[in-house]
Amino acid sequence: MGKTARTAISPTRSEDYPEWYQQVIKASDLAERSPVRGCMIIKPWGYALWENIMQAMDEMFKATGVKNAYFPLFIPLSFLQKEADHVEGFAKECAVVTHHRLEKDGGGQLVPAGRLTEPLVVRPTSETIIADAFSRWIASYRDLPVLINQWGNVVRWEMRTRIFLRTSEFLWQEGHTAHATAEEAWERTVMMLDIYARLAEEILAMPVLKGRKTAAERFPGAVDTLCIEAMMQDRKALQAGTSHFLGQNFARAAEIRFHTAEEKEEYVWTTSWGASTRLIGGVIMTHGDDDGIVLPPRVASAHVALLPIVKGDAERAAVAEAVETLARELGALRYHGRPVTVEIDRRDIGGARVWEWIKKGIPLRAEIGMREVRDRTVFLGRRDRPHSERAALPREEFVARLPAILDEIQQTLYDRALAYREAHTRPFDRWEEFVAFFTPRNEEKPEIHGGFATAPWCGDGACEARIKEALTVSIRCLPFEEEDAPGPCLACGRPGRHRAVFAKAY
Amino acid sequence: MGKTARTAISPTRSEDYPEWYQQVIKASDLAERSPVRGCMIIKPWGYALWENIMQAMDEMFKATGVKNAYFPLFIPLSFLQKEADHVEGFAKECAVVTHHRLEKDGGGQLVPAGRLTEPLVVRPTSETIIADAFSRWIASYRDLPVLINQWGNVVRWEMRTRIFLRTSEFLWQEGHTAHATAEEAWERTVMMLDIYARLAEEILAMPVLKGRKTAAERFPGAVDTLCIEAMMQDRKALQAGTSHFLGQNFARAAEIRFHTAEEKEEYVWTTSWGASTRLIGGVIMTHGDDDGIVLPPRVASAHVALLPIVKGDAERAAVAEAVETLARELGALRYHGRPVTVEIDRRDIGGARVWEWIKKGIPLRAEIGMREVRDRTVFLGRRDRPHSERAALPREEFVARLPAILDEIQQTLYDRALAYREAHTRPFDRWEEFVAFFTPRNEEKPEIHGGFATAPWCGDGACEARIKEALTVSIRCLPFEEEDAPGPCLACGRPGRHRAVFAKAY
Repeated sequence: MGKTARTAISPTRSEDYPEWYQQVIKASDLAERSPVRGCMIIKPWGYALWENIMQAMDEMFKATGVKNAYFPLFIPLSFLQKEADHVEGFAKECAVVTHHRLEKDGGGQLVPAGRLTEPLVVRPTSETIIADAFSRWIASYRDLPVLINQWGNVVRWEMRTRIFLRTSEFLWQEGHTAHATAEEAWERTVMMLDIYARLAEEILAMPVLKGRKTAAERFPGAVDTLCIEAMMQDRKALQAGTSHFLGQNFARAAEIRFHTAEEKEEYVWTTSWGASTRLIGGVIMTHGDDDGIVLPPRVASAHVALLPIVKGDAERAAVAEAVETLARELGALRYHGRPVTVEIDRRDIGGARVWEWIKKGIPLRAEIGMREVRDRTVFLGRRDRPHSERAALPREEFVARLPAILDEIQQTLYDRALAYREAHTRPFDRWEEFVAFFTPRNEEKPEIHGGFATAPWCGDGACEARIKEALTVSIRCLPFEEEDAPGPCLACGRPGRHRAVFAKAY
Repeated sequence: MGKTARTAISPTRSEDYPEWYQQVIKASDLAERSPVRGCMIIKPWGYALWENIMQAMDEMFKATGVKNAYFPLFIPLSFLQKEADHVEGFAKECAVVTHHRLEKDGGGQLVPAGRLTEPLVVRPTSETIIADAFSRWIASYRDLPVLINQWGNVVRWEMRTRIFLRTSEFLWQEGHTAHATAEEAWERTVMMLDIYARLAEEILAMPVLKGRKTAAERFPGAVDTLCIEAMMQDRKALQAGTSHFLGQNFARAAEIRFHTAEEKEEYVWTTSWGASTRLIGGVIMTHGDDDGIVLPPRVASAHVALLPIVKGDAERAAVAEAVETLARELGALRYHGRPVTVEIDRRDIGGARVWEWIKKGIPLRAEIGMREVRDRTVFLGRRDRPHSERAALPREEFVARLPAILDEIQQTLYDRALAYREAHTRPFDRWEEFVAFFTPRNEEKPEIHGGFATAPWCGDGACEARIKEALTVSIRCLPFEEEDAPGPCLACGRPGRHRAVFAKAY
């Protein structure tokens, strides 16, 4: 147990945040890099987390009338080209299938053969292929709205990849809807952003800002992109979900027309919205500490680790029975509608066992040895408390209060994250102070620099670009709730049109 | 309602089975062909069915200790080549990614650019990439067994495609396990086959034969392939799930070694097992009739269609309220652990509405007009009964008995399918009769030909090949329960080693 004196993860967050991120993922067994360039392997502990995130989202989507469907992985090049901005935005990162079989060459090596007449792009997103389907499905106002979601994988060939945050292949959902009016499509765009915000805040305990993107940061082909932005513990922003109002752009490109009740022919209005395995990166960087990841109970891969402590064979049977009885009782409980999940770890590996579960971020660890069996207690450690802080709790109380304890942890994580964001969000009206905020100047206290800066912006893309170039700071969003008089633009001094949120970003 | 006199689907099954299959999918709105060659779009009604199938399988897998994970879509060519039989089996149907971006050529056309050093194959199955991960994850007997499942999409470039049965891209699960001993791996192979059989019979109401494949029909790279085979209504066999004992073939290819408890270094033993959206084709062809598809209640996309019948505005409010109250009561019920799902169809389109739900295969349709409101009844149609057979049922009885009624339908579907298979399964000991069984000879009664034939086989692949060439009939499986003395081989007259099941197959 020599490790208790220090932290489980090296380096710590303040020593080297990017390296901490890699190490914490490794230590938690969430995922790993694969030998395929830029792709990841999501391991069982990470995939269980993703399953819980999917389930939470899926329920919220379905409650608004959305139905799931599945569209092809491959997009013909001709489809992608139909919307000019869209193809422009994705052309640089498309994996292209050009052949449909393998053959041996003269030297016995396998080489691609059977060249395709039209190359196929592995979907980076599915607007174009789904718009094509909509053009066949929609003929009349009676067919509207169409509310579709797809769970699947997409590929964007990234040059610099980071596990969960930016990988060549990632898992996500993409929603696609079509409506008779602009108003209804806009309402849906906002509704889905609200769902992402609820997912982030209520389920992932991750506070977010809601707002709209500037033209420069918009989804390629969208009229408007709404987003949620969360602050990570290095005070960078993570875009955690986006909802796009596509206007009639994709409807025009794919000829999605319908007859109105008045027998006029019009283009539909479409939306799309997506959130991905990137959310896992957000969970790690919002809640993780120097001992490992910290999983919010609402989506935790498992809720409780039961750790039998056996000193000699005489104790084995009694402890084993107590642990199994407890596991059954806990497993019969429900937490926010899903079964409480319990892991029993019977391995005889000493203190390393407790540390593994701390690193894996499980909300609760309950050690049970002969003393606990005799006293009818559990020796409980909570992941939201320091690892050395453990306490005996009567087992009946533990069972009865389990959902309440998990809710306390969930709330603690949210409160901490919110306090962190608030401590590192500041308004700025002067360029020099804004620059200083984003410029490290004190090696000993790097934590006093940076975060979310709100500042007046005139609305000109040139000012936005200048700030980005000078400081690698971008406008994360124009928040929905803004002051009326933002003051003079930080970059040019002209009257500000928005009080924008600026930050460095993932 | 002119349509009640005849069937909803044209052609009927006996007129043209393959065309019936296409039409019945179209009429049910399960799925459609996409503009991408050989790929399908699974529409919401079809995807809801797939979600229910996934959920049933996922629960059964997890109950045996299997955990879900996710591996990359792309497989480096070098990985695929490691197992010679494996690559040989899949080389002809691989989609190959050769470029990672698009550029405009001189004429402004987008063309593939950024050639990859090593081409990537879109996974046709993931044995090689998962074996590579296992080689990193497994070091000691303490790491075993590893029990992994993946839900995802795979691509096999098929020249002749049929929706759900054979598509270039399909959705499936693939399980991959690694074990310390051959015995344990074999047990797992059999265990997963049993799960597929339970899924087919208990959940999909589709009776199956369990058995092993001959060498000629084995999965490329497997030592042994076990399968479930179901009889469709054209009496062809559908392979509905396979479980492979891979021996140490993939362990050798990927160097998956472990230290035994005795400190020896050995290769692990692996298995893999998969079932796909092909199961939906099986459901369609097992239960569908000349009025459309018939969904087994255990996986039905929805259980009940409520159809308000309103004659004039005076009735509207009363009927609407009765329907909504009933929908709430039904929606609060559970059927085998999942919520009862109800669709309310308020469209005012006359008799076409009832027919749509019949074609969609929903287990129950309840019509509710003023008479039903007054009498406190529902006018109920069951999809397992002729479409004209409808009867008034007190609404309280309907609510109370709903799960029982659904179970009755489930059982009826299973019994019918089993009776059909038994009626069309015959033993053969003479070549002439076997040939006659598979040869249409009577245009008026095509239904008396073909089915499953059990017959003695010497075990020689040459005999198997001869029969296949002569009649396009293959050995579907060597059933687990066989007679001791099969008699002389049908093809060569030498002593039979097995009583094999022969059939034409999808």
